[in-house]
Amino acid sequence: MSQILVVGSLAYDSIKTPVGSVEKTLGGSANYFSVAATVLSSVRVVGVVGDDYAPQDRQILESRKVDLAGMKVTPGKTFHWAGFYDDNLNEAQTLKTDLNVFADFDPILPEHYKDSKFVFLANIDPNLQMKVLDQVKSPVYTGMDTMNFWIQSQKESLLQVIKKVDILLINEGESKMLTGCSNGIAAAQKLVQMGPEAVVIKRGEYGLVLNHRDHGLYLLPAFPISEVIDPTGAGDTFAGGFFGYLSHVGTRPGFQDLKRACQVGSTVASFTVQDFGLKGVMKVNPAELEKRKVQYDKFVGNHA
Amino acid sequence: MSQILVVGSLAYDSIKTPVGSVEKTLGGSANYFSVAATVLSSVRVVGVVGDDYAPQDRQILESRKVDLAGMKVTPGKTFHWAGFYDDNLNEAQTLKTDLNVFADFDPILPEHYKDSKFVFLANIDPNLQMKVLDQVKSPVYTGMDTMNFWIQSQKESLLQVIKKVDILLINEGESKMLTGCSNGIAAAQKLVQMGPEAVVIKRGEYGLVLNHRDHGLYLLPAFPISEVIDPTGAGDTFAGGFFGYLSHVGTRPGFQDLKRACQVGSTVASFTVQDFGLKGVMKVNPAELEKRKVQYDKFVGNHA
Repeated sequence: MSQILVVGSLAYDSIKTPVGSVEKTLGGSANYFSVAATVLSSVRVVGVVGDDYAPQDRQILESRKVDLAGMKVTPGKTFHWAGFYDDNLNEAQTLKTDLNVFADFDPILPEHYKDSKFVFLANIDPNLQMKVLDQVKSPVYTGMDTMNFWIQSQKESLLQVIKKVDILLINEGESKMLTGCSNGIAAAQKLVQMGPEAVVIKRGEYGLVLNHRDHGLYLLPAFPISEVIDPTGAGDTFAGGFFGYLSHVGTRPGFQDLKRACQVGSTVASFTVQDFGLKGVMKVNPAELEKRKVQYDKFVGNHA
Repeated sequence: MSQILVVGSLAYDSIKTPVGSVEKTLGGSANYFSVAATVLSSVRVVGVVGDDYAPQDRQILESRKVDLAGMKVTPGKTFHWAGFYDDNLNEAQTLKTDLNVFADFDPILPEHYKDSKFVFLANIDPNLQMKVLDQVKSPVYTGMDTMNFWIQSQKESLLQVIKKVDILLINEGESKMLTGCSNGIAAAQKLVQMGPEAVVIKRGEYGLVLNHRDHGLYLLPAFPISEVIDPTGAGDTFAGGFFGYLSHVGTRPGFQDLKRACQVGSTVASFTVQDFGLKGVMKVNPAELEKRKVQYDKFVGNHA
């Protein structure tokens, strides 16, 4: 098992969904990713928080043995995101993004992070994603996420990072925006011509499309959840479960490994959406994961 | 192999999609269903057309040995539907519905239809669906489709028919409208409490959810198509492939049979969307179906 290096946001989120709301709950892609990935592996975080970041929030990752040497504390306030979901739980509506200390984030890796073999660049400025990637000496497998904001404002930088990673994990809507394709399958086909060997198009409650340049398509429905409480972090915990599985295997993943990583990622994400904030994903442990994975195999007719 | 009885519309459609348009092309649920179902089975049609229905259009079903004894020709014009799709190809926008001779349709079964073992009630007035069902003596397996118009205008009659069939095939949006659930999985769970032993929630390009009262859920992604030309008839040809497979098996279907029927239905529907009107589904034959089914199994990791 190798350690995973993740760079992303550590944040407070205010979220409203059709069934309730929470104020300034712990969130951010690096927190979601880390909680998910530590079910099967271990994680090193690069990120920044303000001096308002509560000790008990730091404790959540510490208790999961996450390496926080790369987590910088800066005078000022922690990144705050506020948003809501209407009945279309597949898409968040942003109300407010206060970057705060995140605005001047300059990711410098602690020396011992530089030999990380698995690297995930969560959704942040592509220039910072590149800066992190450039500091890692000889990664075995690298992946990234992005969002509409960077596609619109930093497209050239974004395309440079996309060229350098092994896999891109991206929402279907954003895959269409990035490629100009109106069809998700067409976008998946175009994206593996843009650099990465593989892409996962995330379709929310409808599951995902994995496309591998040499091995083609793999389609997986989402684990069925009849009541979604809060979809925030579903994509980040998918990525965490996905990379947690891959680093648990430890070698450069083949197509079968990527398929299994998709199954693990989707299973972990299904816990996330069943409660607000990090509460859902924090209920996952290897036994719960395995139990739900057995149900999942039955639901999708997976006999692999 | 048993013959399938289908009641539904025989129509002319005018369709506009982002890639093109057709005027008054042959369509209607019974035509789509019959072309799809005759790939693996044989069909008896109940329906009505006007005296403008072209001999070559009638010939399409005749050449596939469809029994047209229940197809009535009435003075006047054939049912005409006009609609369009924007970039969201999952949902048709209706421009015009001219019922014409369909307005006074009174489905009377020819005597030899009454022993049909497999019955599909395509999307028409639920009072007519019931009238057809009442004339069949001892069906082995019955199914139906419906749409928002009947849910809003004939809900009581609709619920009566739903109580009597074995399986309901319904679009996800309409399943939510019918049950009041905002979640498709919850709708699938509620619908099997309303009468039918099983339900298929159709999710367009995202595939389907099968829910069986005794055996639970089965999730299947759609066969991946990177360029959808015209989604019209996808649902009806899904139903045709589904019932074609079941009647080919011939006995009352178990859960495994229903899963396989979903796979066949989805495969047939994937041909439909690749061309305008009936052109796509008319390219399907058992060899093409089998070829695409092998690819499909690979895409979804199906080793059953």
